[in-house]
This record gives sequence, structure tokens and C-alpha cells, in this order.
Amino acid sequence: MKIMALPLIALLSVAAAPPPAIPAAKAPTLADIVSAAKPGEWQRVDPQDLVLIDLADGSRVALALAPALAPQHVANIRGLIRAHWFDGGAIYRVQDNYVVQWGQGDDDKKAPKGLEGPLPAEYDRPAAGLAVTPLPYRDTFAPKVGYSGPFPVAVEKDRAWMTHCYGIVGVARGLAPDTGNGGELYAVLGQSPRQLDRNIALVGRVLDGFEHMTALPRGTGALGFYEKPEQRVAIKRVTLAADLSADGRPAYEWLRPESASFAQWLHLKANRHDDFYQRPAGAIDLCNALPPVRPVKG
Amino acid sequence: MKIMALPLIALLSVAAAPPPAIPAAKAPTLADIVSAAKPGEWQRVDPQDLVLIDLADGSRVALALAPALAPQHVANIRGLIRAHWFDGGAIYRVQDNYVVQWGQGDDDKKAPKGLEGPLPAEYDRPAAGLAVTPLPYRDTFAPKVGYSGPFPVAVEKDRAWMTHCYGIVGVARGLAPDTGNGGELYAVLGQSPRQLDRNIALVGRVLDGFEHMTALPRGTGALGFYEKPEQRVAIKRVTLAADLSADGRPAYEWLRPESASFAQWLHLKANRHDDFYQRPAGAIDLCNALPPVRPVKG
Repeated sequence: MKIMALPLIALLSVAAAPPPAIPAAKAPTLADIVSAAKPGEWQRVDPQDLVLIDLADGSRVALALAPALAPQHVANIRGLIRAHWFDGGAIYRVQDNYVVQWGQGDDDKKAPKGLEGPLPAEYDRPAAGLAVTPLPYRDTFAPKVGYSGPFPVAVEKDRAWMTHCYGIVGVARGLAPDTGNGGELYAVLGQSPRQLDRNIALVGRVLDGFEHMTALPRGTGALGFYEKPEQRVAIKRVTLAADLSADGRPAYEWLRPESASFAQWLHLKANRHDDFYQRPAGAIDLCNALPPVRPVKG
Repeated sequence: MKIMALPLIALLSVAAAPPPAIPAAKAPTLADIVSAAKPGEWQRVDPQDLVLIDLADGSRVALALAPALAPQHVANIRGLIRAHWFDGGAIYRVQDNYVVQWGQGDDDKKAPKGLEGPLPAEYDRPAAGLAVTPLPYRDTFAPKVGYSGPFPVAVEKDRAWMTHCYGIVGVARGLAPDTGNGGELYAVLGQSPRQLDRNIALVGRVLDGFEHMTALPRGTGALGFYEKPEQRVAIKRVTLAADLSADGRPAYEWLRPESASFAQWLHLKANRHDDFYQRPAGAIDLCNALPPVRPVKG
């Protein structure tokens, strides 16, 4: 089989040697930069923020909650997980180039007492107190964007908020003032619908296994809802990593956006010039450059 | 089943009445604007540019070629279609948040004589002579972006080019100076990888049925290639609409970006403020607002 050069982009990355100690003609690749990052440049996802979604077919999706960006929704989602709200639920909506949505998808099913919501509209938060590593390129939607931990964020005046990028997780809600309770969640699976920013509480980012959601058949009902119950994709159980035995539980770490290696990686993302890229873009979109994440031993 | 309000966005659009002749309190929705566009605001895809990909399972993907943006590649692709190059081929690569790729995927299979390529690197073209309706919002990658026919484009100084948006089709290529011949194509299925702009010949846009490609299992090989031949998704045949009987063949039309209705639609896309959207974005990304397309009688 011919491996066309669009593929070759990454193959070259994989095949290239790590940055040598002595100067060499070959510049480091994105993969080289990530591999060479020092241990202190990585930060582990808090087990209290690491959510494991086990689907009925045995596949697993891992996501990180963002308590700094939507603390009350995150706390409620932890409560719902521990009350087994999601266990036996389903993925019941997949709309092409938009979102995948899961939970119970049933109006008649009430959340456990104290977890019903609605919660305060955590659509943004004070910018003060949130460390943001700025992205040094124009953004269409906000005057300033960047990264806070593994999450993409935007800042305007004294407010900050997470942004709708591929794999970012939000809280489905009814019309105002019903802001949802976190019992029905969605993740972005197409071009980032940034126009939703500040209209919905965003609570996390898918870290691993998203292909088990993104490759599902699109729903043929309005807005991508599955029309027949048997089309739903069953969720066996949802767990917080913190509630598993520390010995051997899954764990992930992200490359800290404030690290030197991230800065180098981001610069190369925006200025690819190699055997394949003849013309560097000179910029990169916020949603094209989420901080790298990798699994680590628990 | 509860229909959460994220869904409601579009339900409201569908349910709303067409704009009344007398003033009403309810502002028109995106769907209203499209429905109310006058016949002269729509333009039909030339049957010479309309490609129909029939997959083995009976599903069909339709795409429009862009001869104004990559004339030699488009001409070669038409030639390859008529030489049955794609018939019996396959989708052989699906990389999450990146691309789906199809063709023969076989180095040993040679294109018919005269269609082998490589072709000139049609990565951009003179801006002169290309009508572009500008998008009046900041773009991360280019000083000026907008729409030319149904296609998203960028302009810098005296050059113009199509941009990598969701559903845009490009020509897989080897390392320079091998620029491909159009016999292996890909389409974007995640966050728009605009950093590829001007590094590859973009030749069209998927108009319909993209979900038959985007919901395919992701390949587990490097770069999303399917590792086993039986994972490939067989292509029965690829046809140009022009080669089908004019009676009853598929046809599509796009809302012309230079029309008043498109301007109104674009403005609302950027400034949603309704029962759901509490805070209008005030802007929209080039790739979030491709000109609406709809099927029409052939």
C-alpha cells in the first residue's frame, strides 16, 4: 500500500531520531519535543478529576474535569457519578460535525436528591486567579486565548471561560434559567462551535478513547438523536479514578502549557517546515493545539 | 426522552414559521432565512463538477469539485472518474479529528496513461479574477477570508486558495515535487487543519452523505490507516453527474455568498440571540459558516 505524504507527515515524526546532544541538521519534530520534555514539565490529572466511561462493548473513554472553570458543575458531576446516575445510561445523540451526547436521556428519570440542579450558570468565571498561557495568534472570537492546565480558554476584560474545541465536554441544558445539572453531557466532535462559548457550562476534556464516541453512527432524528431505543450505545458504568484502588488505576498527565517544551511545541505547530510542509502557516488555532496528554502508570 | 436545550437550538429553527408578511416579534431563524431565499440567490452545481461516490453498502456521498481553484487537478480527477479509477477502490484511512482518505491505496496500481501526474502544485492561485465574498471577522491564519461559490477561501496579497474546513476535499500527495494526481483523495473530518493550507491542492467540498465517511471506525494503524484489507470500506463506483441521464440525476444548489440572504444568514450565524443563546458571539469562524447547500430536482 502506498503511504501518501499526507500520512508521511506523522510517519516522519515517528521515524526521526530524538534531538541529538550535538547540533544536527535535522530539526526536532513535534513528537521529539514531547518525548524530550522533562518530568517536571508534565502534570498529572488529579484522580478526583479523572472520569472513566466504560461502554457496554468494553471500550473506555477517559476525560478530565475542570474544577477551576466550573466548580459547582464539576462537584455535581462527581456526585452523580458516585450516585451511579450514569451507570446503565447511554449515548443517545450523535450529530455530525457537532456533538455526541450521553447520560440518561429521559425526562422522567429524576436525579438523586440534592443533585437535581439547576446550578448557577457557570458559563464564565473571573479572569483573576486563573493562570493562562496565552496563544500568541489572532482568535476569531475573543481578544485573548490560551491554555489553563490541559484546557483551552478565552479571556475578555475581567472574565475567562473554557472554549468549545474538539473533545471538550459541556453540560446539556434546557432554556434559561435551567442550566442543567451535569447529568446529561456532550462532547464536541466537529469544527469547534465556538459561538456556544459563554452560553453553556463547559466542564472538561476527553483525554483518551474519544474514537469510541466519534465513530458512532450519526442519529437520523432531528439534531442527531437516535430514533430507536436499540440504537443507543449503552454505558455500563462511569467511575472516578479516585474511587478505584490506587494500585494500577488509569492515570494521565498533560504537558504544562507554561513549560518551555510546550512553548517549543506550540511554536513548531504554528511553523511546520519540513520535508512535507513547504509553507509554514505562521499561526495555529487555539483548538488545533490543545496541550499534549499521555497515559502514565497509575 | 428529554430534549435538552442544546438540541433545542435547531428544533426551534425547524419549528418556527416562515417570516410573516406583516411584522412580528419573532426574529427569523437561520432556517427561515434559507427557506426564504429567492430562487435567483441559489446556484446549481455544474453536473461536470458533481461527483457521486457510491459505497458498497448502498450509501452515497456527493461532492462538488472546484475547477476555479485547482483546474488541472479537477480535470485529472474527472479523467480518473471516467477511466473508472475509483471503481472497486476503497476508503482505507480514517484518522480521528483529521481526515478520511480513499482511492486505490495501492502503490503498485498505476493510473491510466495520461492521468498519472504529478500535476503542477495548485496550492494557490492568483487572487485576480476570483470573486470572493469577504467574511468580516478576524481569521487566525490569513489576513482575508471569505467564500467563492460554495467554497471557503483565503486571500493574501495577490494569491488566493481554498482552506481546510470540515468536509473540504484534498489531494493526497507524496513529498515534493510529487503533488499527487487526484487518484487518492481525503476529506477533513475534525477541527479544521488550516496549517495544511497552501501545502496541498484542495479540490472540492462534500455536499451530502458525509456521515457515511465520518462515522466509520478509526483506523488503528499509524495515521489512521486500516491495518487489515477487510477493514477497508469498498467503493462500488464513482460517477460524474454529467455522465448520468439528465432525467432524474442528483443535483444540488448552494446559497450564493454574494446574495442578500447569505449576508443575513451569516450575520445571524455570528450573532445568535434567542431563547437559547443568551450571549451572541459577535463573530463566526470561516469553517463554521460554509454556504448552505441543498438537494434539488435534477
